[in-house]
Amino acid sequence: MEYEDIVCGRNSVLELLKSGKDINKLFIEKGNRSGSINEIIAKAKQDHIVIVEVDKRKLDTMAANHQGVVAIVPPFEYCDIYDILDYAKAKDEDPFIVILDGIEDPHNLGAIIRTCETAGVHGVIIPKRRSASVNSTVVKVSEGATTYVKIARVTNLNDTISKLKDAGLWIIGTDMSAKTYYYDQDLKGPIAIVIGSEGFGMSDLVKKNTDIFIKIPMAGKITSLNASVSAGIVIYEAVKQRNAK
Amino acid sequence: MEYEDIVCGRNSVLELLKSGKDINKLFIEKGNRSGSINEIIAKAKQDHIVIVEVDKRKLDTMAANHQGVVAIVPPFEYCDIYDILDYAKAKDEDPFIVILDGIEDPHNLGAIIRTCETAGVHGVIIPKRRSASVNSTVVKVSEGATTYVKIARVTNLNDTISKLKDAGLWIIGTDMSAKTYYYDQDLKGPIAIVIGSEGFGMSDLVKKNTDIFIKIPMAGKITSLNASVSAGIVIYEAVKQRNAK
Repeated sequence: MEYEDIVCGRNSVLELLKSGKDINKLFIEKGNRSGSINEIIAKAKQDHIVIVEVDKRKLDTMAANHQGVVAIVPPFEYCDIYDILDYAKAKDEDPFIVILDGIEDPHNLGAIIRTCETAGVHGVIIPKRRSASVNSTVVKVSEGATTYVKIARVTNLNDTISKLKDAGLWIIGTDMSAKTYYYDQDLKGPIAIVIGSEGFGMSDLVKKNTDIFIKIPMAGKITSLNASVSAGIVIYEAVKQRNAK
Repeated sequence: MEYEDIVCGRNSVLELLKSGKDINKLFIEKGNRSGSINEIIAKAKQDHIVIVEVDKRKLDTMAANHQGVVAIVPPFEYCDIYDILDYAKAKDEDPFIVILDGIEDPHNLGAIIRTCETAGVHGVIIPKRRSASVNSTVVKVSEGATTYVKIARVTNLNDTISKLKDAGLWIIGTDMSAKTYYYDQDLKGPIAIVIGSEGFGMSDLVKKNTDIFIKIPMAGKITSLNASVSAGIVIYEAVKQRNAK
């Protein structure tokens, strides 16, 4: 079973249908016509998508937590980092990019992509190694945001950072040992915010290539936040500053 | 198996040991002495805690993702809302409380409690019904923050809100249809921030009892954030404003 070819769950499939992206086939649970399933079926019929009714057990073998609907789709299409920069340019906005340096939990990856979508981030960059990729769990947790956010998957994060610097971006990293609180840092202008991995934070080489470090104040005994929460806090501080421009 | 009696995972058990709270028994995986396990064993021996070496299979039946260590503890001790208010008073700070109106996903509950701990929130209030309670998953996801944050579990959220209002707190709710962005709202002074449930937001009655509504700007097509992410964004805006006082 190639999980990159599956989108499941009602909200995710509905967002997928709305996006107009390719769907090879739609599996619907036999006899289950509750709630938004009807909306999904109507939209799929309208778009001439092949709908197959199957037993719940068949869906269970395809995906966990499918909510009665599984779409088979072409593999996730990653973009190039220049697609992201071009997109910002087309919108006449300073590039606002999020780099994920080794997020391995698909739930965190999905939640961060969802945050990037609502925040108006131009694109997300993930490395090919030591990172979750966009699979069905990520799509589902993102509530379908993977359909709208540009995501580039790169072989060498540090090469990519160099290219972003050449394009005029400032690389902002989050690190406990930073001196500046995230809200005291100017986050307007062309920036890429680096979010480190759940267990180990940013990798040493990426740290070396980072221009500015910021930290989130920690008042208690626990010394770190969930990766998707800290990403949300920093990304939205940037949103606030950029909206105020 | 009573899951409320279990804390598992290395970080969570280590935080539990550091906190000095009661541990009835500590199960350690036979032959597994990698990383922080040694620190856990040393600390447990020092505190005269009973350590039992067992097969990995035994641990697997007790908890998923135990990382070789499971602690058996007395059931989680919730506090009273007046304990939270007294704690704020003892610290000579304006009360800063987070109310969770129906967070049902233990991962979200754990992540939010973790955020509350690092943010210096005085306490978290959850309802008895329609809500995840503090079980082993929540403890683990919180990275042990449940050990440090005061958590009250109440029968009637609206009665509780009335009591908080009597104590001089402002009740701040998050709602998509609000007119004010969260960062344009004064979040200093005595406040309780209400976070709605993952699927449905705040319940109608709680909404009715809310003094002020705020929203998070949404620039894309997805209309909501993960509950723990939106909690983090709003809670940390309050932290920022309160630190600037």
